[in-house]
Amino acid sequence: MSKIIPNISVDCVIFGFDFNKLNVLLVERKLEDEKSKETLIDDWTLIGYHIYEEEDTDSAAKRILKKLTGLDHIYLEQFEAFGEVYRINDPKDKLWLKYQSERFSERIVTIGYFSLINSTSVSLSLHERNVKWFPLNDLPELGFDHNKILNKGLERLRDKMRSEPIGFELLPGKFTISQLQRLYEEILGTKFDRRNFRKKVLQMKYVIPLDEKQKGVKHKPAQLFIFSREVYEKTKTERFDFSI
Amino acid sequence: MSKIIPNISVDCVIFGFDFNKLNVLLVERKLEDEKSKETLIDDWTLIGYHIYEEEDTDSAAKRILKKLTGLDHIYLEQFEAFGEVYRINDPKDKLWLKYQSERFSERIVTIGYFSLINSTSVSLSLHERNVKWFPLNDLPELGFDHNKILNKGLERLRDKMRSEPIGFELLPGKFTISQLQRLYEEILGTKFDRRNFRKKVLQMKYVIPLDEKQKGVKHKPAQLFIFSREVYEKTKTERFDFSI
Repeated sequence: MSKIIPNISVDCVIFGFDFNKLNVLLVERKLEDEKSKETLIDDWTLIGYHIYEEEDTDSAAKRILKKLTGLDHIYLEQFEAFGEVYRINDPKDKLWLKYQSERFSERIVTIGYFSLINSTSVSLSLHERNVKWFPLNDLPELGFDHNKILNKGLERLRDKMRSEPIGFELLPGKFTISQLQRLYEEILGTKFDRRNFRKKVLQMKYVIPLDEKQKGVKHKPAQLFIFSREVYEKTKTERFDFSI
Repeated sequence: MSKIIPNISVDCVIFGFDFNKLNVLLVERKLEDEKSKETLIDDWTLIGYHIYEEEDTDSAAKRILKKLTGLDHIYLEQFEAFGEVYRINDPKDKLWLKYQSERFSERIVTIGYFSLINSTSVSLSLHERNVKWFPLNDLPELGFDHNKILNKGLERLRDKMRSEPIGFELLPGKFTISQLQRLYEEILGTKFDRRNFRKKVLQMKYVIPLDEKQKGVKHKPAQLFIFSREVYEKTKTERFDFSI
């Protein structure tokens, strides 16, 4: 493979939904002194790497996700470039970069991507490094400026969800309104009134009610719905042209 | 000033509204052979430049806008990084980069910013180069991948306007609904029904009707309105949590 570019990287904010909570995928950054075995660094960061000379930035993000999950075609979207001069200022961050490669620059512009996957159906591996899902409400202090990047990614995910139906693919093919409400509440970090939410969903032409109810549940079985991207695309232009 | 970074630049999509049309600011790219005086390049591009080693990417975009208009505090927002390997492939583009500086790389990741200003109230200058407003519906073929960058910037401007009140600062302090409709129609590139538009505007709590009408107009004077950012910020959370 060609050479890396020392001053341009991508970082991926990988959100995972497990039908209950929204999580984010982090990788452990561990470094000990070779002689004394003293722990020099032990914390977590987003998953990212430098781009290669013969690689688009989008391809770099895809490569990382593919390496991590084995999957192609994961929903992935660029959300912001981070280009502050002093974004890598902490001695720990500088030490880590030097340990990773002497060729890395200390002035790195990184391009943030976010992704949304079903966290229960992927198996993860990353060069024998420790990767782990963290619930959004219980995040550690991250290395570099990755807390900032994560928050910006979350903001964009939320903006996106307010204006188009993302995440429906994370639900079962046939889902109940309660399951959909859970998805919206977890991603938007808010609570909806059950009846108001139901009312809004029934106005979404692309959420199609089935003549079918849940089976094998202990509570009163709820009606099932399917999501139609086709109907969404077709009815897009009928919707509000601007917010009021 | 410190050295430029050879492989990272910013490009600004500067939109200007003149109370009638939405325009975009371009700079002429002209190069002739020193001996034969033959024209080698004569076209237009967005306005951009490489970033300096000791400069944030945001600061680079601000520097360019300040140089161009003399103004600080212009509305400026990053919208996307362009990182394709072969985005600079045309011999003309390569020739131009070489002519500008031997230090420029041919693999440049550029970060796109957009800005929205009142095009009637600024005076422009850029290192004695020719800069000019072009109406959006009459754009020339641009150098580099700048048509693509411009279109992406326009997309983002439109998304933004659908979800929050931008551009109100471009109207007179007191404006009529017709003037506001003109702004929305020009930016969104669409036509609204007069009565529906009026109905929507009257639902915007942050557009405040005055007990005052236009003066000195030949037609029937229309009611005047003001925009209140304060009311907008206060009523933000009351609005829809997601689109239907």
